This record gives sequence, structure tokens and C-alpha cells, in this order.
Amino acid sequence: MQTSDTVLMAHGSGGTMMRDIIEQLFFEAYAGDTLKRADDAAAIDISADRIAFSTDSFVVTPHFFPGGDIGHLAVCGTVNDVATSGAIPRYLSCGFVLEEGYPLEDLRRICASMAKTAKEAGVEIVTGDTKVVNRGHGDGVYINTAGIGELRKGVDLSGSHIQPGDKILVSGTIGDHGIAIISMREELSFSTEIESDAAPLNHMITDVLDACPAGSVRAFRDPTRGGLASTLNEFAEASGVDIRIEEDEVPVHDQVRGACEMLGYDVFQVANEGKMVCVCAPEAAEAALAAMRANKYGADAAIIGEALEGEGRVYLRTAFGSERILDMLVGEQLPRIC
Amino acid sequence: MQTSDTVLMAHGSGGTMMRDIIEQLFFEAYAGDTLKRADDAAAIDISADRIAFSTDSFVVTPHFFPGGDIGHLAVCGTVNDVATSGAIPRYLSCGFVLEEGYPLEDLRRICASMAKTAKEAGVEIVTGDTKVVNRGHGDGVYINTAGIGELRKGVDLSGSHIQPGDKILVSGTIGDHGIAIISMREELSFSTEIESDAAPLNHMITDVLDACPAGSVRAFRDPTRGGLASTLNEFAEASGVDIRIEEDEVPVHDQVRGACEMLGYDVFQVANEGKMVCVCAPEAAEAALAAMRANKYGADAAIIGEALEGEGRVYLRTAFGSERILDMLVGEQLPRIC
Repeated sequence: MQTSDTVLMAHGSGGTMMRDIIEQLFFEAYAGDTLKRADDAAAIDISADRIAFSTDSFVVTPHFFPGGDIGHLAVCGTVNDVATSGAIPRYLSCGFVLEEGYPLEDLRRICASMAKTAKEAGVEIVTGDTKVVNRGHGDGVYINTAGIGELRKGVDLSGSHIQPGDKILVSGTIGDHGIAIISMREELSFSTEIESDAAPLNHMITDVLDACPAGSVRAFRDPTRGGLASTLNEFAEASGVDIRIEEDEVPVHDQVRGACEMLGYDVFQVANEGKMVCVCAPEAAEAALAAMRANKYGADAAIIGEALEGEGRVYLRTAFGSERILDMLVGEQLPRIC
Repeated sequence: MQTSDTVLMAHGSGGTMMRDIIEQLFFEAYAGDTLKRADDAAAIDISADRIAFSTDSFVVTPHFFPGGDIGHLAVCGTVNDVATSGAIPRYLSCGFVLEEGYPLEDLRRICASMAKTAKEAGVEIVTGDTKVVNRGHGDGVYINTAGIGELRKGVDLSGSHIQPGDKILVSGTIGDHGIAIISMREELSFSTEIESDAAPLNHMITDVLDACPAGSVRAFRDPTRGGLASTLNEFAEASGVDIRIEEDEVPVHDQVRGACEMLGYDVFQVANEGKMVCVCAPEAAEAALAAMRANKYGADAAIIGEALEGEGRVYLRTAFGSERILDMLVGEQLPRIC
């Protein structure tokens, strides 16, 4: 067998080298019985009439950053997307696009991280694919994950179900992920390191759904690229309501606020990878808040605003009582944040 | 709105430009009601206790080639992987990794091709993701698809279920896809153009399963990267049998055979994207063959060999009666073929 410390084109050949990397690296890190069967498709049990299905590709750079890495992100991102529908995430696929020359040791670290996060989230990686592209046509590693979750009976959440009077909650401080990445890229240093918030939030979502009366939770969404501002604008537009946010109620770490001021970013447009926006009926808001706060990823959760009759706009009310429109991100702020 | 003829970093921002490309390009090409709901996860109906789940990334270059394009391939590849398990493919996810500067017109053609192939296969693209990487970190477009199919009751196919005496079938000529791609890259010209065979084979698989007694079909696999040789070696190893192939029975286009001789390729190791290997009990072989031949993608189907007691080796018996071991591809032959 040809051995190497780095990814070779032959690792994507469909031949013996590909078999070796699959068995020695991917299987070693996270394979259960289904993946090890090595059939082209995984045959898996589903005990629900409806399932949630989502996909995300991850192209973040750098691959390793305070609070996480691209593998951790690849599991959290898809787990969270599946969970926002109210489904219990069960299975993940994983497709790698590797660049020739990428260190296998880094890939091994990434896979170990995926395994750890999948375990925490309670999902199994059951099928995968490996492609290799020539030097200069990638960036070490890109990862796609797709996820399947089982939808509970009677749960139908959507950004289009929001009604005037509904309360808007966020599960913690915003902007941490984006600022952690940009700090590393720009080699900024702060008195305390800012860490990415990347985390699997499916258990928190289950806790909220369990704590609230049936039908009172309208939607969850994780405010990733485009930040809280984009998520709220998507909600307002999909439901044809206005949303008003109280700036003072939105939790932001001082260091993140400072970095945003220094760098000229609007913290509401900075990406998060471990936060959840929840919209629920007003009578469920306190229960949802308590459920979030009881979860280790929701200690700083807050009710930050409400939906109003309107036409799909988002307003931010400042501490001084003035209001401004909170727009969706226009152009590009922080490329390749996830 | 910022307009452009090419992909900009802002198309991956999570903001307004990303919303625009999603709505104006992806939705326009292939969105049904589920995708248009634009939630983070698609909620879809499943009427089976077991599902098949598979994923594939596509990095083929060039993106357009005789007989297909990267979009056609991205749908066929995952549809076929799901179908090999005996499942009825139903839903696809689609994740794009776009390179800054890629012409939107090319992306539009690719999406139209995906829509057309999905329609033929009877699958719906229900969820997606769009990432953009900087110039010099991609190759225009990479596509990941993941697919979900419904498994019929009682169907349990696997490369590990093969028994001595089973017959090996292939649904048509081998090597067409790989040689079509390499011909285009190397600007080789032949008296007749060699076309990729890329095709969705799920309906053919259903036809074979319907035609054969329950339990008599052991496994399907599409011999993509690594070609027929890799697929047969995977089968032999997984089931602990030997496989013997009659070289004369394996259908190969004359031009493909000629190109392989000229270029020094072993046609058994060249990729296919529209062929299926089927292993079945001997008493089912004629029915399986007839079902393949009745399908438009199986006109040249043939019984090419059989499984024997053994230890996981594959033998090729030549026209002269001599035998050689048919090895799995070692190293790399045709990079980025799919």
C-alpha cells in the first residue's frame, strides 16, 4: 500500500487508496454498523410518518478556531437545521471534498471532533462520500453534511406561522462565532479570547417544545450567516408581520460588542453557530425562556421582542426609545464563516 | 439590488444577495412547494419503516461533456446510489460550493439539467444550501446531493449477501463515462463521439426487482469510480466469495476499447455513471436480464459471470480460456471523473 501523510489524488480514486482512507480514517473515527456495511446507501429505521431533511456545506477558514473546528461545525450546523423543524435528529451523511496535499493528521482531528459532537447530539453518521480535488482547487477540506430527523406527531413549525403578538426569544449572546473567526483571521487579540458558540441545540429545542403547550411554539431558526437580522427579516417576510426588537434586551458579550465597533460590523448581522431564535405565543414565552435557561447552552436566553401587525419589516428600538429598521445583510460582511 | 453575471462572495452571505440567487436561480429551476417554504429543514412525508440514505459530492471537470453535465450527474449519482438498496428514491438535497466569478448562466444550465433529470427519476429537490469560496479555492462549481428513498418491505440488498453460484449481470457497455470525460479533457477525437452514459437507473432497478422472485436479487451497485473491477472486488470481499467474469461477455463499445488501448487504461477500471451491476440467484438471472433489456438504459445488458466458493478474489477469464486476477484500481487513473 502507498502510504502518505497527506491527501493524494488516489484517495479519491474509487480504488484501494480510497478504501484505505475510508476504513483507516473515517470508519476509525465514527463508524457504526450501518456505515461499516459500506453499501452505496445506508438502510435505516424510521419511526415517523414525517421526517425533516436538511443539508449544509462547510467551507470555513481557518479549520480550527477557539471553541470549535470545521468538523464540529459540520455536525452542529445540520443537527440544528434539522432540529429547528421540531424533529429529533437521527442520521447524518458526510461528504468530504479534500484538496490534494491536505495533512491527514488534520483530517483525523476533524473526524474525531465530528464523532464527539455527533455523540453529544445523539446522531449517527451512516453514509458518506470522499472526493479529492487537485491542489489549488480547494482549501484543504470542505464538508457537506445532510441530516434526517423524525418529526413528532402534530408538530408543524415554520417561519411562516408567526402571528402578531408572538414573542421573540434568543437563546444567548449573539455574534460570538463570527467574531471568534474574524479575530483569528486578523490575528486580533483581546484581553479574553472570544470563543465560537458552535453547539448542537437539538436537546434544548426538545426541552422548549416539552415545556410549552402544543401549538404555542411557531418557529425556531439558528441565526447563522447574516446573523439575527437576517433570521428576523426572513421570519417577518415569510409570515407577513413586523417584528420589533428591544436592543437592550439582546444579550451581547462586551468583547464582541467592542470588536464590532472596532471593525465596523453590525453585531445583529454577525453569524452565530450555537444560538437559537424561538418565536412562540405570548402565553408560552416564560415557559420557553425557563426551558432555554435550564439548558447548558441557553443560560443567557432572553425575550428580545415581539411580532406586530405589519408588512414584513424588522425594527430595533434603542435604549433611548428611538427606532431604526434592522435590515437584512446587503453585500458580504464575513466570508466563509461556516 | 446588486446585479452581476457571475457568482460574487455576497451570494454566500446569508443576506439579500443569497436570497436573490436562491429565489431567482434555484427556485426558478426546480423548486416545489416544500423547497419554496425556505425553512432550514424540509418536512416531508415518508410511507415506509425503513429508508435508504446516501450522499455524493460532484467535482467533475469539465462541467459540460457529451451526454451530460455536472448537474445531471449530481442527480443520477445519488438517485442510483439510493436505488441500489432497492429503495424508491423520493427526495434530494442539494448543496452548492460555488467559486467567486463563476458565470451564472452556466449555473442556470446546470440547474435546468438537474430539474430535468430529477423529473425523469421521480425525485424532488426539497432542501439546499449555497456556499461561495474565493477565487482560486474551487473550480467553478462543486455539488453535493444527498438522497432519501423508501425501502420496500422485505427487500434487503447488500454487497455482503452474495452466495456461490449467484450470477453477475451488467446493464450495458462499460467505460463510456470515463472515456467521454478524458476524451474531452485531452481533446481526443474519434470518428463517432463517445458519450457519457450518465442516467437515472432507479426505474430499471424496480423493473428487475418486480421481475425476480422475492429474495433472489442479492445486490445492485453502480460501477462508478474504480469501474467494474472495483465494484466486483468490493462485492467479493464483502461476501467472502470469489467472482469469475467472462471477458467476452462484458459489453464494451469498440471506440471505448480502442481509446483504452491507446491511452493505456484497463476498461474494467474506467468509471461508469449509467450502468448497474446486479447479482442474483441463478434461477432469477434470465428474468433479471430480460427486465434490464426491456428498459431503455439496459438494451445491452448481459450475464457476465458468477460467484464461486472462495476468499474474495475476482478472476477474469479471457477469450483464450486463460485467467487473470482482476484487481481493484491501485493509485489514480482518471481524477475528478464525477
